[in-house]
Amino acid sequence: MQMQYSDDLIQSYIDLIKQKEDSVKKKRALARLITLIENGGPEIAQKIIPQIYNLTGHAKIIGITGAPGSGKSTLTSQIADHYLEQGLKVSVIAVDPTSPFSGGALLGDRIRMKKNFTNPRFFIRSMANRGQLGGLAMATKDVIHVLDAYHSDIIIIETVGVGQSEIDIFKSAHTTLVITPPGLGDEIQAIKAGLMEITDIFVVNKMDRDGADKRVAELQTMLDFAENIEIKNDQTQAKVVRCDGWRPPVIKTNGVTGENVPLLLENIKKHQEFLNQTGFIKKRLQFRYKHYIVEILKYFLVKNVEEIVFTNEKINEFIEKILSHEQGADPYSISGAIMEIFRDRYFS
Amino acid sequence: MQMQYSDDLIQSYIDLIKQKEDSVKKKRALARLITLIENGGPEIAQKIIPQIYNLTGHAKIIGITGAPGSGKSTLTSQIADHYLEQGLKVSVIAVDPTSPFSGGALLGDRIRMKKNFTNPRFFIRSMANRGQLGGLAMATKDVIHVLDAYHSDIIIIETVGVGQSEIDIFKSAHTTLVITPPGLGDEIQAIKAGLMEITDIFVVNKMDRDGADKRVAELQTMLDFAENIEIKNDQTQAKVVRCDGWRPPVIKTNGVTGENVPLLLENIKKHQEFLNQTGFIKKRLQFRYKHYIVEILKYFLVKNVEEIVFTNEKINEFIEKILSHEQGADPYSISGAIMEIFRDRYFS
Repeated sequence: MQMQYSDDLIQSYIDLIKQKEDSVKKKRALARLITLIENGGPEIAQKIIPQIYNLTGHAKIIGITGAPGSGKSTLTSQIADHYLEQGLKVSVIAVDPTSPFSGGALLGDRIRMKKNFTNPRFFIRSMANRGQLGGLAMATKDVIHVLDAYHSDIIIIETVGVGQSEIDIFKSAHTTLVITPPGLGDEIQAIKAGLMEITDIFVVNKMDRDGADKRVAELQTMLDFAENIEIKNDQTQAKVVRCDGWRPPVIKTNGVTGENVPLLLENIKKHQEFLNQTGFIKKRLQFRYKHYIVEILKYFLVKNVEEIVFTNEKINEFIEKILSHEQGADPYSISGAIMEIFRDRYFS
Repeated sequence: MQMQYSDDLIQSYIDLIKQKEDSVKKKRALARLITLIENGGPEIAQKIIPQIYNLTGHAKIIGITGAPGSGKSTLTSQIADHYLEQGLKVSVIAVDPTSPFSGGALLGDRIRMKKNFTNPRFFIRSMANRGQLGGLAMATKDVIHVLDAYHSDIIIIETVGVGQSEIDIFKSAHTTLVITPPGLGDEIQAIKAGLMEITDIFVVNKMDRDGADKRVAELQTMLDFAENIEIKNDQTQAKVVRCDGWRPPVIKTNGVTGENVPLLLENIKKHQEFLNQTGFIKKRLQFRYKHYIVEILKYFLVKNVEEIVFTNEKINEFIEKILSHEQGADPYSISGAIMEIFRDRYFS
């Protein structure tokens, strides 16, 4: 992938997004910084994040997930509207880890958000899985910080499905909504499998449909059950901090008419108050940044390892040994020896 | 995942598979070693591979891939039969990276290979994506070495599809067959996208069907085209060594009747002679082991990084700094400081 950028150019974009005053130029600079991070990964992000980090920590980050057909996009749009009406600045990232298609705001976004598309306090951006350097979850974390420095009050991360990459993405959210409309049969199973741990609020969208109350009842039963089991808090297993004392409320909404969206926002507010009052907010942030750091370290270590193995001349001697198939020349033993080169090159 | 094993037990399995004489007991020990690698990842593999590595390097590894419905399994069965009839010892690993279901020989395997299932020179095993430590491609590499030490003459790795994990798996093969039967519309596109680089022989299976000759012609046209473009040999991009001078033959087969399977085997033999005569075999093996080493180093480095970030007490001070959102306390800058702890702990 060819990257067209210079440090000066990056600097000019950073200067622009730091400005208090919103403008089309500022929005464009934001879009370009995001594209740079999407294409250049942690290599580029490390030129950007340190310069803007002191401007971050303000935005409230809301994660929204749900299967295709759950009305997730329409509901996101409604939520964004409400925050905009409150005079807040709202940014939306629509992440689709299953799509190989890329960035920029997609046509679909423009259409569904057309009411607000020209609102200077509103920004929307799609991100998809294009084999990003460092991964999509990592790029999303970086982008969230850029949006935070851009003075967003609310950052909504909307994503499809229940995979590991979504769960990774939601580690960055303050409050995560999981949408499970009536009639999507297997949904409940899917929630059990992984989303339970990241859900702060359940949303039964399309509440006008048959089965909405049944779905609410199912979720409540599941929550009763969940309260009585112990979730192992094994941090290396990358689980999200569990907030004891917070039982995810189940809110029925209608994303099309906007019914109950204010109720949903009230619950989001309650959840954030809960996080602040109990101090769980800090645990979540600690957890978030530990994972962020692990990903950064991983990225650069792996990059260095690849550089050594694929470019260091000495490696060929080691490979020669391996090809002899002699005792002691197996890839595991030889890797130990290469680790020494690694140490000499990067740690001495 | 609970692992039931002791070093003594591993040792007894290793001793068994080293025996020259084939037996049910030896086969069972092999199956258990594979299960241990599947469940325990590189942690366990590093106890096994160094002990058997001097017995490896003999087996010829054949990769077979094709979309579901391509008749891949039936053809694999035919190929295995032919090698068994030649008095060779044949092992098959059926890898399905898209399936979350697991290991052991699946019922399907038993059925389709029932003719040979009790043959002491035949072994078959399924591997699926169960979130293996170190990844499925890595586990497959380890397992190939165990099968090699088990004195397999031929190891067939059969896998579905065209994803990156399949491409990683085929880096281990001497000869890779790509099956594209007539009538699977988008197949050609998929091949263009990634498999081209790993294909040594194209197989148009189900040759009795309409469109077989058309498919052969399409592939030949594609190969004409490919000969005239330059593939960048960027090793860090994890491409497979390109063998100039070898144009993948296109072989029509009928996996059900076995028609042309001997012709296919002849071509496999030709390909392996080509690799040996030109010296490309050595380049492929160098490439294979470089990737193997990168994966081993990655696995252990990442494991150590996670250990530091999630268990080292000092980390909390760094996280505290990050949460201050001060200049210089961003995750990228702090990661640099943590790298120092990493150095002190593992490299001094």
